[in-house]
Amino acid sequence: MHTALITGSTSGIGLGIATEFAKAGYNIIFNGLEPNGAEIAANIAKEYNIKTIFNGANMLQPTELQAMVKQGVETFGTIDILVCNAGIQHVAPIDEFPEEKWNAILGINLTSAFHLSKAVWPTMKANKWGRIIMIASAHGLVASEFKSAYVAAKHGLVGLTKTLGLEGAPYGITANAICPGYVKTPLVEKQIADQAKTHGISEKEVIEKIMLAKHAIKDFVTVEDLGQMAVYLASNNARLITGTAMPMDGGWNAQ
Amino acid sequence: MHTALITGSTSGIGLGIATEFAKAGYNIIFNGLEPNGAEIAANIAKEYNIKTIFNGANMLQPTELQAMVKQGVETFGTIDILVCNAGIQHVAPIDEFPEEKWNAILGINLTSAFHLSKAVWPTMKANKWGRIIMIASAHGLVASEFKSAYVAAKHGLVGLTKTLGLEGAPYGITANAICPGYVKTPLVEKQIADQAKTHGISEKEVIEKIMLAKHAIKDFVTVEDLGQMAVYLASNNARLITGTAMPMDGGWNAQ
Amino acid sequence: MHTALITGSTSGIGLGIATEFAKAGYNIIFNGLEPNGAEIAANIAKEYNIKTIFNGANMLQPTELQAMVKQGVETFGTIDILVCNAGIQHVAPIDEFPEEKWNAILGINLTSAFHLSKAVWPTMKANKWGRIIMIASAHGLVASEFKSAYVAAKHGLVGLTKTLGLEGAPYGITANAICPGYVKTPLVEKQIADQAKTHGISEKEVIEKIMLAKHAIKDFVTVEDLGQMAVYLASNNARLITGTAMPMDGGWNAQ
Amino acid sequence: MHTALITGSTSGIGLGIATEFAKAGYNIIFNGLEPNGAEIAANIAKEYNIKTIFNGANMLQPTELQAMVKQGVETFGTIDILVCNAGIQHVAPIDEFPEEKWNAILGINLTSAFHLSKAVWPTMKANKWGRIIMIASAHGLVASEFKSAYVAAKHGLVGLTKTLGLEGAPYGITANAICPGYVKTPLVEKQIADQAKTHGISEKEVIEKIMLAKHAIKDFVTVEDLGQMAVYLASNNARLITGTAMPMDGGWNAQ
Repeated sequence: MHTALITGSTSGIGLGIATEFAKAGYNIIFNGLEPNGAEIAANIAKEYNIKTIFNGANMLQPTELQAMVKQGVETFGTIDILVCNAGIQHVAPIDEFPEEKWNAILGINLTSAFHLSKAVWPTMKANKWGRIIMIASAHGLVASEFKSAYVAAKHGLVGLTKTLGLEGAPYGITANAICPGYVKTPLVEKQIADQAKTHGISEKEVIEKIMLAKHAIKDFVTVEDLGQMAVYLASNNARLITGTAMPMDGGWNAQ
Repeated sequence: MHTALITGSTSGIGLGIATEFAKAGYNIIFNGLEPNGAEIAANIAKEYNIKTIFNGANMLQPTELQAMVKQGVETFGTIDILVCNAGIQHVAPIDEFPEEKWNAILGINLTSAFHLSKAVWPTMKANKWGRIIMIASAHGLVASEFKSAYVAAKHGLVGLTKTLGLEGAPYGITANAICPGYVKTPLVEKQIADQAKTHGISEKEVIEKIMLAKHAIKDFVTVEDLGQMAVYLASNNARLITGTAMPMDGGWNAQ
Repeated sequence: MHTALITGSTSGIGLGIATEFAKAGYNIIFNGLEPNGAEIAANIAKEYNIKTIFNGANMLQPTELQAMVKQGVETFGTIDILVCNAGIQHVAPIDEFPEEKWNAILGINLTSAFHLSKAVWPTMKANKWGRIIMIASAHGLVASEFKSAYVAAKHGLVGLTKTLGLEGAPYGITANAICPGYVKTPLVEKQIADQAKTHGISEKEVIEKIMLAKHAIKDFVTVEDLGQMAVYLASNNARLITGTAMPMDGGWNAQ
Repeated sequence: MHTALITGSTSGIGLGIATEFAKAGYNIIFNGLEPNGAEIAANIAKEYNIKTIFNGANMLQPTELQAMVKQGVETFGTIDILVCNAGIQHVAPIDEFPEEKWNAILGINLTSAFHLSKAVWPTMKANKWGRIIMIASAHGLVASEFKSAYVAAKHGLVGLTKTLGLEGAPYGITANAICPGYVKTPLVEKQIADQAKTHGISEKEVIEKIMLAKHAIKDFVTVEDLGQMAVYLASNNARLITGTAMPMDGGWNAQ
């Protein structure tokens, strides 16, 4: 039985990934901002007959991150899989980009992954087995305007992933980044409806011409798709895949 | 029930990939140079309770490739998955690289994939579903000296993959390249033993210092690993992955 | 005094590159399809006070390519710089892409560069100095639909470049690919005017919304821009740049 | 007459780059840690008949960075070129990597470039002309073990560069990252001598087998080489080059 720690897993993408790991029988350390995080974790445990805990560690507090890892290892005896998924976004032109947003995005989307990887490393090294999976973004490989902090943080996360892949090589630890395009979450579904109203066009047009302009495939990634890729990367057959940045972006990076 | 056409599948990597598709219940069109190709295909059919045929099409003969696709579609009603795996190698410095080897490598490793993709396209387009999987190489992303033709052909194959990914986007057809590092096949196992004798060093040293010098993970990719990745890319959850080049190379491309 | 062989240099991009090398004082071996190639070469010689010859070698005939290199070395005592610029294009969906177009594009855009690199190699190796510059394309790094052969050939050219860069390292030979976006040539200027008429829109709109849709910078690369990059890559200060693919594409690859 | 602000320019790579801009006639805003920074700036001004100022802004203090830009614009009327070169390194395994080193490396090597780009942006935008040049590293594209913070910061810098390239497109502002391999500086020369003594091997062996193991070309990049590339990227003929990461790494990234 393996154990996975997944940040930002009480909603959206993280919850989708957690659900796929739950289906596959992993125990899960949940983390996130939802006030009822413990309840969400308990419900998943019940539904999939696994064990879960919830820890609300703040991504900007290294000591909280370390404590979460410690709690996970004490509870389950091990952490085998770390999925760094928590992230925020802010959109503004470079000359108006607020310093505090830059710092928050680098802290939450990049530096937290450093602290968590460092914290789980001794356990994975002792186990001679580990999987670190970063939820980066197509923006870990290419840019969009007005997203300077996000693109820098996600590229940085891809760089961290490569380094961890090399350092983990002698210990059976792999590190890989998943680079999704646009993912369908409840938040996004609401945006579609709102934009359709605002622009007076159909939801289909909002999706194909605005939201998915960069996708060749005019469809969203689902949280199940992402979860399945993470579960695949956690498999033994993926043990030679390391230091990679795997696009799941509807052809965005191919053009 | 899906049907997969896999070139070069009567031995080595191709046979490994075919076996994983067989385990997953796909019918298979085998192809390759083994004189007992039909027997190999029949044995797999029996072992995994699937249907198979064998076609010995020469990768350098477009009409034979077209005929193979035609036979596959007539036999199974469809081809859903095309795996272009057949390939050859030749190693020589640029100033001594034989013209006929350049032509053969480009023809077999690259141009055959064009002809096969073109031939299966109408069926996949009609089905609104298809998977084209190119077995490229880490050499589809970076080079090694003395392999000018192979590196050019594999980079070209990655380029073809991206184009097919974009063109397939409206039709539910994805195209992706798998980029393995060094793969353990019977041929390679023999080389290890031979080199150990020649250099008077242990097989372990041959593997770690000579054969896998470019891998951070000092282990070979197995044909099962490759087959599992191909099966994953053929899944419905991979439908947003297209136009990518997926390394499975022990960290080669990360450094 | 250095000598440069530039293919496809009697018009368009090649002529622009040749002109920059001429300004910088290099002797030039011209090549191309213009019937008055010898006259073009002679005019450049006169204008820039350099020496030139013209050789009309067909890119699809290896023996003609070898003879051109031989003539260049016999005339100037050396070839120091090889610029592989000749290329053709054909646009068609994969299922309608003519086999003969695929073969011609791979032959002219990729295989000719192999033959020419092989032919100049002994001279550059003996000189302990050489520069091989491939005019690839943004399509050497990413794809556009309906350009399967061109994208495959240009990716292949980038792969060949990397291999040559590694093989040339001990001999002072570098190999690099320039990856332009859309370049303004007389041919393109005519297309702009034609499309403006056809669509009934302004030339500015044709440029910004149709031709340069993939450029973030809504301006064409000029042949002088390309020539200056080639001259820079030929400089001694570029001696540590090798095996690279240098985009000059108005931000195409950044997004 | 153009003006360039170059961080970390009182020694090593930055001083080399500043010297090439000085030779080319640019005014320069020097910055760095040398206590005699003002004297260094004055000497360059005298030697190359240009104007210079020195500002010792600390890369970790946004207000100091803003004040430096303000001083530059007030003194010279404009800043046309920003070269972000200041950087530090720390080498340690992930499980021992000090939090304060991670923060310092991200702050100095990445976040300072955000603050400076933001600060120079209004001037460049008003001028409809600007060049932002990041001195990244081969580690902006690939990793080495034990350099998690440096690799993350340099990848992040490449991501920031792409975003700035896209945002600058309408304003004549380009942004590019130079990715050098190993550069010969006085510091490195001392390391070579020290390592030769320590290991009891020749300086040549230290260079080729230890320091330049990742270079195919067994030679260091010089600060002049880097400076020449920066001057080239600042030229008008480079105006279509944007959002790129330009390797100057002896073939490191090609293999």
